[in-house]
Amino acid sequence: MPIRTVAIFSPGDMGVVMGQVLSEHGLGIVTCVEGRSELTRLRAREVGFREARSYDEAVAQADLVLSIVPPAEAPSVAERVVKSLHRTGARPVYADCNAVAPQTVKRIEAMISEVGATFVDVGIIGPPPEPGSSTRFYCSGPDTTIFEELGKYGLDVRKVGQKVGEASGLKMVFAASTKGTTALWTELLVAARALGLEESLLKEYAIGRLTVSKALMGRIPSMPRRARRWVSEMEEIAATFEAIGLTPRMLQGAADMYRFVGDTPLADQTSREPDPSLDAVLEALSRTLRGKAGVRDHKD
Amino acid sequence: MPIRTVAIFSPGDMGVVMGQVLSEHGLGIVTCVEGRSELTRLRAREVGFREARSYDEAVAQADLVLSIVPPAEAPSVAERVVKSLHRTGARPVYADCNAVAPQTVKRIEAMISEVGATFVDVGIIGPPPEPGSSTRFYCSGPDTTIFEELGKYGLDVRKVGQKVGEASGLKMVFAASTKGTTALWTELLVAARALGLEESLLKEYAIGRLTVSKALMGRIPSMPRRARRWVSEMEEIAATFEAIGLTPRMLQGAADMYRFVGDTPLADQTSREPDPSLDAVLEALSRTLRGKAGVRDHKD
Repeated sequence: MPIRTVAIFSPGDMGVVMGQVLSEHGLGIVTCVEGRSELTRLRAREVGFREARSYDEAVAQADLVLSIVPPAEAPSVAERVVKSLHRTGARPVYADCNAVAPQTVKRIEAMISEVGATFVDVGIIGPPPEPGSSTRFYCSGPDTTIFEELGKYGLDVRKVGQKVGEASGLKMVFAASTKGTTALWTELLVAARALGLEESLLKEYAIGRLTVSKALMGRIPSMPRRARRWVSEMEEIAATFEAIGLTPRMLQGAADMYRFVGDTPLADQTSREPDPSLDAVLEALSRTLRGKAGVRDHKD
Repeated sequence: MPIRTVAIFSPGDMGVVMGQVLSEHGLGIVTCVEGRSELTRLRAREVGFREARSYDEAVAQADLVLSIVPPAEAPSVAERVVKSLHRTGARPVYADCNAVAPQTVKRIEAMISEVGATFVDVGIIGPPPEPGSSTRFYCSGPDTTIFEELGKYGLDVRKVGQKVGEASGLKMVFAASTKGTTALWTELLVAARALGLEESLLKEYAIGRLTVSKALMGRIPSMPRRARRWVSEMEEIAATFEAIGLTPRMLQGAADMYRFVGDTPLADQTSREPDPSLDAVLEALSRTLRGKAGVRDHKD
């Protein structure tokens, strides 16, 4: 069965660009923007999304449904789709593309399988796909055929394995290494600045660890505008680790850091503005700290 | 006043090598090995330490006392020295060289200052000093003259600032960036192996992040033999961050990781044996995990 129409819930940064690529390669893209902002509606229309009036209408047209939302919303999107499958009798393949723990995606799989639809676990690694970019769409599950078809429509699709949970698990361990490390380095650099030790620390790095430390610091400026989204992603990684008997606290702490950054005006920045400098990020965050009693006590 | 005799409490890996370097450069080194193992005694004697029968006797001979112990023992060494200062009337300069939080070192400073001895805050960055190695001895405090003298006896001494807490703070933020990052990478690589995703993860790194990820993974094999010592160091960093209003959870999680590694036979290895391979470390740790219910449930 050739794939013709893909439903995307919901068109955020990643969803819009993904839909645009698929649409440019000849697939029909449908979404339901009910309850979404006027800006989201406009962006989706601009890149060629068809607008359905309801989830039911979108699901009924689709050969494949992609769920692409902040991690915390993944189960509720699945619930809405399950209701639409019941009501419409349609049975498109359902692919959960969210940054969630393997145990979370298995709960979602159970909901989808119960109504008799095929489920695919997907983990997206990389920025929203653009010409020349190399975003990877990892998939796993007993039947990933339909999702793998997207490889013919401009996406870099790679199969991880036969089990639901593997693609999500890969996303989790990868994001721990990138976003987890960025959280840790943000924290220690903010601490260094707050304690008046940043210059000494950077001199120390210059002695022997400059390449790695520069690379890790270089990831900080583009973080604040994404920090709010990353809170629940870090919590999903913490849950992933906890489920296999590892400590959840490092990643819970990473969630704390992104919550802290997300509560500052730095996080209001959009991807259409230039990123702030590392210096500006550290200054804003350590200034926020200085507003608290702890630092004043410490500096006495 | 020229410096002639240095007391070192207690001669572990770092203390023995530091004493050896100072001794080779002409300083007298005294220690009290009361209550220490026969091996420690032998090693200390071998590298030229004089053995005092008591803290009192060692302190009475010293121009400078160095406290170099696992972080959790730093306050009790200071207590013992304070008692000896009272009993002997001696007033050597006291340098706390331990990986402790600024607030911890300030509590120790208060104890030492109360008896009228000069206090120096020291943070050691790098491996035990050897010919050709570049271990840095950062110091801070209102009067660091005597400690800085050690620069003439084979140590790389650098002044951070005038305040007690700065040298320790520098050690804390630096160790967060090295040992904190190593804890995080150990955790995610163990998770990847336990979930059967290590090969996919390494392939993903090969796409774009190979230099940094290789460098960070390369630090793991020498970690297990030091993991037990690092538990309290991570807890001191967590306390450092918490005192200025940042989350302690990432570093508490790093302490959890080193506790986990420390509970395995991997941690019994000594620095005189070759380090295990990364593969052997990950295999041993993920095997330990598999002994727990969590992973079995997950793999079902």
